[in-house]
Amino acid sequence: MNANHTKYSEYELLMKRLADLKYAGAVLQWDQETYLPAKGNEHRGQQLATLSEMAHELFTSEKTGDLLNILLHQQNHLHAAQRRNLELTLEDYDRNKKLPSAFVRAQTEAVHESFHAWIKARKENDFTHFSAPLQKVIELKRQEASLQGFEQHPYDALMNEYDRGLTVAFTDQLFASLRHSLSPILEHVRSKPQIENHFLHQHFNKDKQWAFGMELLNRLHFDFEAGRQDVSEHPFTTNFSAKDVRITTRIDENDFGNMTWSCIHECGHGLYEQGLPNEQYGLPLGEYCSLSIHESQSRLWENCIGRSLDFWKGNWDLVMKYFSEELDQVSVEQFYKGINRVTPSLIRTEADELTYHFHVMIRYEIEKNLIEGNLQAKDIPAVWNELYENYLGIKVPDDKNGCLQDVHWSHGSFGYFATYSIGSLYAAQFWKTMGNDHPALRHDIQRGSTHLAHQWLQKHIYPYGRYYNSASLCKKATGEILNPDYFIAYAKQKFSDIYA
Amino acid sequence: MNANHTKYSEYELLMKRLADLKYAGAVLQWDQETYLPAKGNEHRGQQLATLSEMAHELFTSEKTGDLLNILLHQQNHLHAAQRRNLELTLEDYDRNKKLPSAFVRAQTEAVHESFHAWIKARKENDFTHFSAPLQKVIELKRQEASLQGFEQHPYDALMNEYDRGLTVAFTDQLFASLRHSLSPILEHVRSKPQIENHFLHQHFNKDKQWAFGMELLNRLHFDFEAGRQDVSEHPFTTNFSAKDVRITTRIDENDFGNMTWSCIHECGHGLYEQGLPNEQYGLPLGEYCSLSIHESQSRLWENCIGRSLDFWKGNWDLVMKYFSEELDQVSVEQFYKGINRVTPSLIRTEADELTYHFHVMIRYEIEKNLIEGNLQAKDIPAVWNELYENYLGIKVPDDKNGCLQDVHWSHGSFGYFATYSIGSLYAAQFWKTMGNDHPALRHDIQRGSTHLAHQWLQKHIYPYGRYYNSASLCKKATGEILNPDYFIAYAKQKFSDIYA
Repeated sequence: MNANHTKYSEYELLMKRLADLKYAGAVLQWDQETYLPAKGNEHRGQQLATLSEMAHELFTSEKTGDLLNILLHQQNHLHAAQRRNLELTLEDYDRNKKLPSAFVRAQTEAVHESFHAWIKARKENDFTHFSAPLQKVIELKRQEASLQGFEQHPYDALMNEYDRGLTVAFTDQLFASLRHSLSPILEHVRSKPQIENHFLHQHFNKDKQWAFGMELLNRLHFDFEAGRQDVSEHPFTTNFSAKDVRITTRIDENDFGNMTWSCIHECGHGLYEQGLPNEQYGLPLGEYCSLSIHESQSRLWENCIGRSLDFWKGNWDLVMKYFSEELDQVSVEQFYKGINRVTPSLIRTEADELTYHFHVMIRYEIEKNLIEGNLQAKDIPAVWNELYENYLGIKVPDDKNGCLQDVHWSHGSFGYFATYSIGSLYAAQFWKTMGNDHPALRHDIQRGSTHLAHQWLQKHIYPYGRYYNSASLCKKATGEILNPDYFIAYAKQKFSDIYA
Repeated sequence: MNANHTKYSEYELLMKRLADLKYAGAVLQWDQETYLPAKGNEHRGQQLATLSEMAHELFTSEKTGDLLNILLHQQNHLHAAQRRNLELTLEDYDRNKKLPSAFVRAQTEAVHESFHAWIKARKENDFTHFSAPLQKVIELKRQEASLQGFEQHPYDALMNEYDRGLTVAFTDQLFASLRHSLSPILEHVRSKPQIENHFLHQHFNKDKQWAFGMELLNRLHFDFEAGRQDVSEHPFTTNFSAKDVRITTRIDENDFGNMTWSCIHECGHGLYEQGLPNEQYGLPLGEYCSLSIHESQSRLWENCIGRSLDFWKGNWDLVMKYFSEELDQVSVEQFYKGINRVTPSLIRTEADELTYHFHVMIRYEIEKNLIEGNLQAKDIPAVWNELYENYLGIKVPDDKNGCLQDVHWSHGSFGYFATYSIGSLYAAQFWKTMGNDHPALRHDIQRGSTHLAHQWLQKHIYPYGRYYNSASLCKKATGEILNPDYFIAYAKQKFSDIYA
């Protein structure tokens, strides 16, 4: 064992220790969303804060910086993967070092306050309760952008947290072109008779929905030996290693769709986490590439696969096994059309594949202006409602169905939303490429198997962790960087077929 | 705010931070026993080790010692409760400092190895797989005793971890007197016709058992807003604050008793944890007194209350609600006798109230000899089987039903077992005292309420945390220190009535 090797082991040990702390926090958070008794909340926030503070202290110590620098200056004996781990860790280290502990604590406190204000505001359906605490969070996010530094736009520094290298310049252009291309498709849809889908809103027994979802997950290759599903108010995916990936769902007995596609969506996230290289536990190459790529995984399964006619042909037996009473008068073709009905609506998470992007663009526009300082928190409701009128042609009746619907701002997650749309665009590009690579893909899915799709992702996406950034990973997997035309073509064909 | 006050706040902050780490570990452990997917185990051990290592490092730092000493030397401005917290923390600090980090790590590793060896040995029903790893743990426990120091017997140092001040001298005498008094009662029982209890071994539906247990817990004042019950292989209680107490149970469909009394037993532990002073989170006065007192709580509810005729008279409606089909031919008196049937048996956790103590004494004798160095791990099976023959008159057929039944040794928990018996003795003493203090106690219980019992414990046991040690707490609550005569009198009356 040479000295470099020993030093690298020291680095690995430190990173695993940090991961242990981080994942312990994730267990506490998962528990908070699933099983925590009401009064247990009292100490849970503090417990989580302590874990993240200790991780921050450990990671940003001078010792960590010294170790990384020594290793990177003696990198001639390291493998490419080892070097890449070190480079990425040094990037993270530098970014973390730029935020003083006092600033991190101030942010934690502000977020704590704004989250509770958001809860209250939602409960009372009145944004004004949220306005001042949110403005405080925004000021800190603006400060964070300055501390991190940026070349063109302060919002770049924040988006960078979720997708390394994502910029306002790129996103503005992307969204403009998306709006330009989606508008005629939406207009076409609106000119046609609306699709029938009342059969999705019958009463669907809770236990049956749960069992149906679990069987679906099994078919989709979710590994229940390395993960589980539970119920929470808002579905999410978390993981404590690639061998312990937890997804959650919610069940609405009057809506077939709520659980079904949240199940498939989270499964897409879950498969990605289960597919990351386990031996890289705690190291960047064991972590997901970016939030955009993560979302590409959930959207690919939820929409490209999970809202396709092929998929439901392949799984109609399962629908009939649990819901023949409710759905045996519905053909799989009617079902397919019903689950793809396009309607401008108020709530992002319930939106169809087309209008979804407009929901995201609205949030993106608002955030950009908030971070620029051109918009104050108190003015959000007015701007929100105006944009919903402009982009989707609908009137927002109140704040709960408007600007209070998402938790993100109360959490201080600014720069996050764009990755939802971008993820969908990546999804369409991956979907097209895997179809080209596997001519039997659709046939496979029609037969109720998603083996080929999973295999393609296992080969082209999962194994790389953070080795490539989103753009390079996409180029490597599909031959070109992100190109929204794939999504446009997919949407045009799908919805002109459905709304023929 | 004076300087002492500020320093005391610094101490409180440190202790809360330590508690956050400790309880985070407890959440991970709870999750491991209840919901962890199989492959998730791979990283969980390391995650737990990191949390406890970081807590140990933080607690045993020189800074902690300095802070405690400064505070204790300026204690003139502190309240009695604050002073007591500091004294107890200093005791803990000194005990922790005596164990070097390298020793703690060696012990963690040895325990990890011995635990897995125990699993294998149990699976193959062969103690020899466990023998060498266990001997390694024993050597480290002997070393631990030397490092901690002791006045008379090395085993004193280990028992002290579970019940401050408990000694071999005291326990030897206590157990001798217990054996002396219990033997004639056991002989009396044996001279009488055996009691019928086959009705407890019918088929009892799993879901109904669960619902029955949950209702029982509600009646017993377990606060489900500050706790929950889940299923695990071995029932246990854990907590992450007084406001988040988790108990677990197991269900055997062919045994009414397995879940029922584990439920009541763990509820006793749980009520204690829920009753500890929440505002002392992280401080000694917010922690349980000792394992003996903890066990007194579970045994008091399980046996003194939960195996009494009064209790089942008061809750017969619940039995009938769920199990009228199975039990409506059984009178509550027959039921009472059946659940109190005395039979020498192989498995400690399934033993009746009388023979239970002999199971414990056997383990105590063996441990004492192992720590003295008069017995080697490899010789345990022979000694074990001989003691079961001598004390209980039964032949041990194999290691699984013999010396491999308990997990404790594989975990390195030496000095623990005696607290099980001692807890039962405290329980009888508390039970008698609360009966004297509340003449309506039995009547209350017969009416299906355990309010008075709970109230007594809330007044005399729960609020003190570690302020008093076991002996002082008992003296304060009952007027005298531990006196086994209470248990003897209780047992004599109960079992001579049953075996009339």
